[in-house]
Amino acid sequence: MTAEILSVGTELLLGDIINTNAAFIARELKQLGISAYFQTVVGDNKERLIAALNSAAARSDIIITTGGLGPTADDITKETAAEFLGLELTLDENLWNGIREGMLKRGRPVTENNKKQALLPNSGRFLHNANGTAPGVIMEKNGKTVILLPGPPFEMEAMFKNEVIPIIIQKTDTRFYSKTLRICGIGESQAEDMLKDVIETQTNPTIAPYAKSFEVHFRVTAASADAEAARKLAQPVIDKIYAVLGENIYGEDETTLEEAVISLLLKKKLTLACAESCTGGLIASRLVNVSGVSAVFMEGIVSYSNESKVTRLGVSPETIEKYGAVSKQTALEMAAGAARVLNCGVGLSVTGIAGAGATGLSVAATDAAESNIAGADIAKTAGRRGVPESDICAEDKADKQTGLVFIGIFVGGHVTAEEFHFTGSRNRIRGQSAQTALDLLRRKLLNGN
Amino acid sequence: MTAEILSVGTELLLGDIINTNAAFIARELKQLGISAYFQTVVGDNKERLIAALNSAAARSDIIITTGGLGPTADDITKETAAEFLGLELTLDENLWNGIREGMLKRGRPVTENNKKQALLPNSGRFLHNANGTAPGVIMEKNGKTVILLPGPPFEMEAMFKNEVIPIIIQKTDTRFYSKTLRICGIGESQAEDMLKDVIETQTNPTIAPYAKSFEVHFRVTAASADAEAARKLAQPVIDKIYAVLGENIYGEDETTLEEAVISLLLKKKLTLACAESCTGGLIASRLVNVSGVSAVFMEGIVSYSNESKVTRLGVSPETIEKYGAVSKQTALEMAAGAARVLNCGVGLSVTGIAGAGATGLSVAATDAAESNIAGADIAKTAGRRGVPESDICAEDKADKQTGLVFIGIFVGGHVTAEEFHFTGSRNRIRGQSAQTALDLLRRKLLNGN
Repeated sequence: MTAEILSVGTELLLGDIINTNAAFIARELKQLGISAYFQTVVGDNKERLIAALNSAAARSDIIITTGGLGPTADDITKETAAEFLGLELTLDENLWNGIREGMLKRGRPVTENNKKQALLPNSGRFLHNANGTAPGVIMEKNGKTVILLPGPPFEMEAMFKNEVIPIIIQKTDTRFYSKTLRICGIGESQAEDMLKDVIETQTNPTIAPYAKSFEVHFRVTAASADAEAARKLAQPVIDKIYAVLGENIYGEDETTLEEAVISLLLKKKLTLACAESCTGGLIASRLVNVSGVSAVFMEGIVSYSNESKVTRLGVSPETIEKYGAVSKQTALEMAAGAARVLNCGVGLSVTGIAGAGATGLSVAATDAAESNIAGADIAKTAGRRGVPESDICAEDKADKQTGLVFIGIFVGGHVTAEEFHFTGSRNRIRGQSAQTALDLLRRKLLNGN
Repeated sequence: MTAEILSVGTELLLGDIINTNAAFIARELKQLGISAYFQTVVGDNKERLIAALNSAAARSDIIITTGGLGPTADDITKETAAEFLGLELTLDENLWNGIREGMLKRGRPVTENNKKQALLPNSGRFLHNANGTAPGVIMEKNGKTVILLPGPPFEMEAMFKNEVIPIIIQKTDTRFYSKTLRICGIGESQAEDMLKDVIETQTNPTIAPYAKSFEVHFRVTAASADAEAARKLAQPVIDKIYAVLGENIYGEDETTLEEAVISLLLKKKLTLACAESCTGGLIASRLVNVSGVSAVFMEGIVSYSNESKVTRLGVSPETIEKYGAVSKQTALEMAAGAARVLNCGVGLSVTGIAGAGATGLSVAATDAAESNIAGADIAKTAGRRGVPESDICAEDKADKQTGLVFIGIFVGGHVTAEEFHFTGSRNRIRGQSAQTALDLLRRKLLNGN
């Protein structure tokens, strides 16, 4: 069976967005054992969309489109695909009522345009959109299956996993078992090197590496006539990977690093306090995205200024004066201070120089402000606290030190800190810092602390 | 003149890499005023590559390929494109000597395969590769131009800018001007509805809407014989959009919402304190991603538990008891408390019920923890603070109230709070809450506070 991916959207043709959807679907199809030989991108244009559907139908059994299902006039994928297959559209009253109620609940005005989303081609059926209003559609005619998915990746991906995979599995007689092992703290090439022998000797299951943001995933996929046989093929290889990579594997499948950390804290009955400078709430925000977090994480402090480090966390002004705000000593005192002040068993701190980012106010605006506001505050603080002016707001200085980050951990009455040198944009350095802090804490908790 | 992009590479079809090259070239073509209506991806397969070249040549003047120019046997783009155009390949001795010397210098073994890179179709010419060994090629026949570029983005991008743009500019006489207006606080369909008259009467400039995460962008693009004339065509339409959408437009081009907020704070010489419950650091984290933020934002508090709201922000236990942690009254006290405790002119607070997320620990783990750890803490806190147990950790309760969020703002000595009902996953509700909080603050600051 062959499938092909047809991405619809003028913003793709203009290069305003990158086509991550095609890569996602391609990977999923490969895992399902479906061959896909073509990907096409067309704009929201009826004539060219029909031409693309024609070409696709001539060479593939399944056509999967993304984009153009929204309520606006330029969203024409469903109407055009129905016309291409010779199907009529009728309003699904149930769905329309649901959409309308949802919009009213959110205080959004309901316009006639929104009705488009509830139009269903006859003999087709809707695919549920767990993360948005535009439903997907599946239609079949003359042995061709056309599957229409929304464009926003987080809507499309959930719909593919929940709605499309079961449909495709029914169409094939091969069953797959796959498990993703999530690795943090070592790079992709290092992980691949460590697994070289395992990877090279395998054809079924296959082992595919995926580089993610600051981590690597390996997906092991076995194919067989039934699911249980596939699982039995995969298991010994999964065991081998665990034997080689050990605690570099933090979780499986959908488990996130923050979930792994919170699970360990729960198991050890420990509570966590965060003190974040350059990460500015990134760690707290990741933790809070785990439901059930309130058992181990109750509050965090974003200490972006030196004054905050001193008044909120009890870092000594002498430490900041002697070693600087971005130093091992400050990280140690921030971690211990956070645990003490917030009354938790574990304290995690980050202080570093993220540098100037792609996102930045114009220099003029920043300079004016620094002299008018922060300047005054700095003088006040420095006078009051004995903190030297030069160290204030070190995170905003883009210099040779950009990427220097210290991470401190207080646990079991002991406090340690490590130095890192990250590279890339401000955003990237902050992301790497948050990821590394969570991973360091995970390893500390694993190793008996 | 029309162009199209043909990406060659089995790794693209398998989803192992994301096609950033197509987006890059598309953006560059748009800036050059070249229409590009199709993008295609095929694997390193001769038959399918010829089929794709055929389709492309039938509808476009310029075909730009990426990938498949390397030295290995599966790199077949140049050989196939030459065959497609009926051109013969001959070895360019100069180039071959250069490649060989370069490889010897870097200690790489020179194999017969490397000769492939020095083969030139007759009547074609090479494009210099500043960042790698595989040169590009440009060939013309029967009014069609075929441009072959290497696959690695940093090689391709440099070659496009240095070698391809001068060739394309010679072929066109249109210049473009475009501006993006960024809108927040109203939905895509509502914004389009408001702009209906402006959009429908326009052909040059065009107005294109883009739905982004919790915001909408409108791009106005004008074409003319020179860049200044294009700008003059666009300006009256941009002015009209400003007249219609007013303060719903928070910024232009690359400006982010957090930058818009920080700019206003700088202008008004105000400092900001954040108190985040369900957003858990998301707002602070967005603010800290703006370099220069230290002038207006120095610290934030993530008050996930009720105890933290009481001890850290000074919310009265009676307020939480009477109205609940997720209430307008608590939001008001959090905002005022944050400004007071952190000694800032402005306080921004968020408290809400984000619900259970896609990311969530297993129920068993959460329950165990709630009784073992949080349970104990809750009893302690409740006893100490008089806070009823039932309201503690309201954010972790996934019930009918999911999506209920209160946002409080303290500014100019006055504190206000608003109620919202968001929908979607835990992550989405948190994202909407952070976005809405920043937008509300922006509007407050704009309106003279």
